[in-house]
Amino acid sequence: MIVLETADAVRAWSRECRGHGEVVAFVPTMGYLHKGHLSLVEEARRRGDKVIASVYVNPTQFAPGEDFDVYPRDTDGDLVKLRDAGCDAVFLPEDLYIRQGGDAPPHETFVTVTELQQPLCGASRPTFFRGVATVVAKLFNIVEPDIAVFGMKDYQQWRLIRRMVRDLNFPIDVVGMPIVREADGLAMSSRNARLTPDHRRNAPAIFRALSEAAASVAAGETDAAAIVASVQKRIAGAGGRIDYVQLSDALTLNPIDVIDRLALLAVAAHFGEVRLIDNVELVPPKS
Amino acid sequence: MIVLETADAVRAWSRECRGHGEVVAFVPTMGYLHKGHLSLVEEARRRGDKVIASVYVNPTQFAPGEDFDVYPRDTDGDLVKLRDAGCDAVFLPEDLYIRQGGDAPPHETFVTVTELQQPLCGASRPTFFRGVATVVAKLFNIVEPDIAVFGMKDYQQWRLIRRMVRDLNFPIDVVGMPIVREADGLAMSSRNARLTPDHRRNAPAIFRALSEAAASVAAGETDAAAIVASVQKRIAGAGGRIDYVQLSDALTLNPIDVIDRLALLAVAAHFGEVRLIDNVELVPPKS
Repeated sequence: MIVLETADAVRAWSRECRGHGEVVAFVPTMGYLHKGHLSLVEEARRRGDKVIASVYVNPTQFAPGEDFDVYPRDTDGDLVKLRDAGCDAVFLPEDLYIRQGGDAPPHETFVTVTELQQPLCGASRPTFFRGVATVVAKLFNIVEPDIAVFGMKDYQQWRLIRRMVRDLNFPIDVVGMPIVREADGLAMSSRNARLTPDHRRNAPAIFRALSEAAASVAAGETDAAAIVASVQKRIAGAGGRIDYVQLSDALTLNPIDVIDRLALLAVAAHFGEVRLIDNVELVPPKS
Repeated sequence: MIVLETADAVRAWSRECRGHGEVVAFVPTMGYLHKGHLSLVEEARRRGDKVIASVYVNPTQFAPGEDFDVYPRDTDGDLVKLRDAGCDAVFLPEDLYIRQGGDAPPHETFVTVTELQQPLCGASRPTFFRGVATVVAKLFNIVEPDIAVFGMKDYQQWRLIRRMVRDLNFPIDVVGMPIVREADGLAMSSRNARLTPDHRRNAPAIFRALSEAAASVAAGETDAAAIVASVQKRIAGAGGRIDYVQLSDALTLNPIDVIDRLALLAVAAHFGEVRLIDNVELVPPKS
């Protein structure tokens, strides 16, 4: 596995691969890798001839006061995991943005997905998705992959990147992979490492609440308010401080009152200092 | 010369060329071509092995009430000119945006260059450069050129596209070409065709004013206010309704008081219904 630290080196590597007719599959990450990330690498290996991952904690998607400074980092461990997972190359940039203070004017270009950025996580993190779309556009232009693989735990991010790719005509197939969970159902996340033992014990309530909701929908429930209320109650009962519980149209992420199309039930809740997200797609019950 | 109407056909053409090791140079236009555009095609031929132009009047860079509906169009004439200029391919899309009303959510992704979009033309046309950056990002992703050639009559656009390319890591060399002028000095523009005979006769006052300013700077003048006042007077005296006359840092386009670095003297003025722009780069006089 080759470790590349500059955009030029990555582009040269990718063009060399594609010049040989190889399909390049790309897995962008913020590091501190877990089995969820590695499932993306596995899918990339299935779909591509060569796999490149990136490890970069993107500053533009954190607001002041968010957890950029304490976001967990373990570059050495990440490199071992990516090598063992069969990555061919890793992009490990020091920084991707031109900063104030040099001769050149600082970075000032941003990509916004105006509608999909607003609901759910966008409501409490107003510049988050602008940062995500911008860094992914940059990485896409550097790596020039044929395929990019994202996790559907970050469902809104996945939909937003797909929308960006469609709207800006990126020649990239964006693949979404299902959430990977711990044995007790907690969605894997780099942030789980920061949960206290008590919060770690209680956090699987999120998945239990989503599973019960899915079961009730399968049994015929279609009323969004009733479903949301029962999920909120279950999570609050486990000590979670709810940011949102929402039932949405899965394509636009706009709220819906009744499950009459493919829907997304999405949760964000704090357990202590740690903000966790999780979701489940729901199909309307057979009538 | 091959005429391509879909993004897929353009991408296939470009990848075929680049697969042979040929350098692809791209000239994006809004059609109604004049010698200014053709100078871009000539430069593209000098720098590239294959040249593709696009002809597309981009709706997202016009605000409601601007001249999108009356923007001059002459597709047949444009194709003849591009063929005679030695273009290898032309991209002639019907539309580049997904619209409200279909099954899919409409276009919602935009590229903004937050600082360079604000001064000069950005002040009176607040969404203009967002539309420009967005359509150019789309065209870059469709055409995948090695080189793109822009005219420096649209100086702010040229700087902004260069900034976007730098910030989003597009692997494209953006080249700027000097303004091409009529015999009387009027900068060539598709909009000149809409000038009345009287306004056409008076509009070269813009270039005379800029030339006089350049001569005064060469003779030692460095005071921005004095230079701007004299340009304003000359243009107003010829019946032009001034939108702006500004002396700016050529890199940031922020206003400057004294010419102590590479500067841009830029003008926008209406002659009748037609808004004309022009500019000249100025170097500080030798001290």
